Amino acid sequence: MLVVFASAKLLSELFERFGQPGIVGEILAGVLIGPHVLGWMAPNDVLRVLSDLGVMFLLFRVGLEVKASELLRVGGSATVVALAGVLLPFGMGWGICALWGEPHIESIFTGAAMVATSVGITAQVLAARGLLNTRAARVILAAAVVDDVLGLIVLALVSDLAHGGSVRYLDLALTGGLAIGFTLLVARFGTSAVRRVMPRVQARLALAEGEFALAMTLLFALSVLAVYAGVAAIVGAFLAGMALSESAEQRLTDLTNGVAELLVPFFLAGIGLHFDTAAFTTPSTLGLAALILGAAIVSKFLACGLAALRMGRSDAVRIGVGMIPRGEVGMVVAQIGLNMRVMSESVYGIIVFMSVATTLVAPPLLKLAFRGERPSANEEVLRLG
Amino acid sequence: MLVVFASAKLLSELFERFGQPGIVGEILAGVLIGPHVLGWMAPNDVLRVLSDLGVMFLLFRVGLEVKASELLRVGGSATVVALAGVLLPFGMGWGICALWGEPHIESIFTGAAMVATSVGITAQVLAARGLLNTRAARVILAAAVVDDVLGLIVLALVSDLAHGGSVRYLDLALTGGLAIGFTLLVARFGTSAVRRVMPRVQARLALAEGEFALAMTLLFALSVLAVYAGVAAIVGAFLAGMALSESAEQRLTDLTNGVAELLVPFFLAGIGLHFDTAAFTTPSTLGLAALILGAAIVSKFLACGLAALRMGRSDAVRIGVGMIPRGEVGMVVAQIGLNMRVMSESVYGIIVFMSVATTLVAPPLLKLAFRGERPSANEEVLRLG
Repeated sequence: MLVVFASAKLLSELFERFGQPGIVGEILAGVLIGPHVLGWMAPNDVLRVLSDLGVMFLLFRVGLEVKASELLRVGGSATVVALAGVLLPFGMGWGICALWGEPHIESIFTGAAMVATSVGITAQVLAARGLLNTRAARVILAAAVVDDVLGLIVLALVSDLAHGGSVRYLDLALTGGLAIGFTLLVARFGTSAVRRVMPRVQARLALAEGEFALAMTLLFALSVLAVYAGVAAIVGAFLAGMALSESAEQRLTDLTNGVAELLVPFFLAGIGLHFDTAAFTTPSTLGLAALILGAAIVSKFLACGLAALRMGRSDAVRIGVGMIPRGEVGMVVAQIGLNMRVMSESVYGIIVFMSVATTLVAPPLLKLAFRGERPSANEEVLRLG
Repeated sequence: MLVVFASAKLLSELFERFGQPGIVGEILAGVLIGPHVLGWMAPNDVLRVLSDLGVMFLLFRVGLEVKASELLRVGGSATVVALAGVLLPFGMGWGICALWGEPHIESIFTGAAMVATSVGITAQVLAARGLLNTRAARVILAAAVVDDVLGLIVLALVSDLAHGGSVRYLDLALTGGLAIGFTLLVARFGTSAVRRVMPRVQARLALAEGEFALAMTLLFALSVLAVYAGVAAIVGAFLAGMALSESAEQRLTDLTNGVAELLVPFFLAGIGLHFDTAAFTTPSTLGLAALILGAAIVSKFLACGLAALRMGRSDAVRIGVGMIPRGEVGMVVAQIGLNMRVMSESVYGIIVFMSVATTLVAPPLLKLAFRGERPSANEEVLRLG
């Protein structure tokens, strides 16, 4: 833990000093101490737990700054952005692999991995500059949530195909419906439910730090429910934060900041730790890796940017850039493919490389895209991680 | 995580409502959901990591409220208290088991487990009432640290005996010397080193929340060093907190509170989770368990109380009560004995029972012993866990 935390902070400090986002330093710290560079550290269970908790608290903390009503208001644009950001990357990933001569199923899985959006990275960069309440940021957050639901459906579809069977459309509809229903329900009614119930319960508590205890319980409960509903635990964490955003007191945000400060570096360095050199073993895999990476960046940027064009060119660029990072989500899809034995080690390596690289590229691009934008007055500048 | 956290908080709330220390509720929550009552949850790696981190942050947070100079001032009295609190419990544990007809080595191990003091529990109860800066509290904290060093020596001695060999006195002296040297060195010079170095480093940092990052690095570093020096990681965590106590800003304590609030329930419920019914399988083990528990309570109370008698009867009672809980430390010793195959399952069960029971008994007794005492003005009331 010492090694991971200290090296993440050290590289973060270095990057900040040179005017670069510290988040890139923390991910690179993971790459550096990871098995393929210095070899000081390999992914393990302890780090995985801390990293999972880290991204949960990151999204919870981001949720606390975002009002559900404002996110729902941009729901339409966000859905269009997310849909476009699913179709083009999927198509390009599939197409490139198919042209390259990879097996059919493997190509489809590569496409599915390129659908992923790691909202954590973008949210972190925007939160660090107090920009979560800009219109572009709201669309990105909402689109990332929609993307998670769409990604679930794509993954279910692809898994059906990989199992050699036909697609079970009824199951698929039920899965998708449950995920959409859960997300919409909590987003729509969470805030008012919390605002009605929390103060009453809290006022009756004899417990010290009752608000924090209730908030943590809500966070864990919604994360568990989210997993049951088929979406990621971090979506539950984000929804929990958002439900609390209008009633949270400063004390709650302070305490949560402490947890996030401690754990987020494990999430970021943890992404870097997964980096491996399998993608670079032969000129052929290297070529494919470069193509896939290029397609991953261009396809999300173009698709999401064009889908948001009617919001103006500047916001469209911001949204396009904000959807680029694949982070841990892309890796999860690749891991599923590997476990189902429909994906080779080298293509797995390529997808992990693509996930890490898109995540490293996004923060500086975001900084550029949002330059000149000022933090909104009533938003706390979060410099987590 | 949801189950553990929510049930700990629920029982804590119940206990607080009836005027009892919430900490007892959190430990009982662990017993309740544990494998031998409801069976909802068994100790596992994730919970162990969270619990270890929990007790580290608990001690770190307590250290932040304690000045090293004031702890060193009571060093003499504390050493006497700790020594007495080692000799009598060890002798009684050994004697009872020997009279009961247990094997020689097993009796010695039982004695060793009764030496342990879980400073976390007492510190938590006192911190929750803002009483860490009373004289009795300082003696208890210092004595618990000394006890950890003495416990290390006892354990090394006992392990030598269990390995069938003679005692390696030179090794023992080196081990003890290193542990004492490390602890004294950090306690004596830690504060001034931190006060000299921290502000300079911090002022130069471009990193956000630099103080927290530095503090966490110090915490992890001293915990690792402590383990190398032979003492428990939590002693390192406590020393790190103490070194920072005179320069820490409110922001650091707020952020640390957040982490502790989240993780301490896992430590407390984790103690309860280990409770098992092996001690109650036969009337004979039940009898021995009752005897051992009685001896564990009486021996620490009498030995430490009498050793502190010249501080006045009231402080002597407080110190005697404060040294009673064995908590996780007693369990660790029993676990070592079990792993070395010199301890039977039933005696292991008895020691775990004794560790949990002394931990449950202490908070209400402490509340009684400290009644009428007011929190000191400049101490933050910590209601962690």
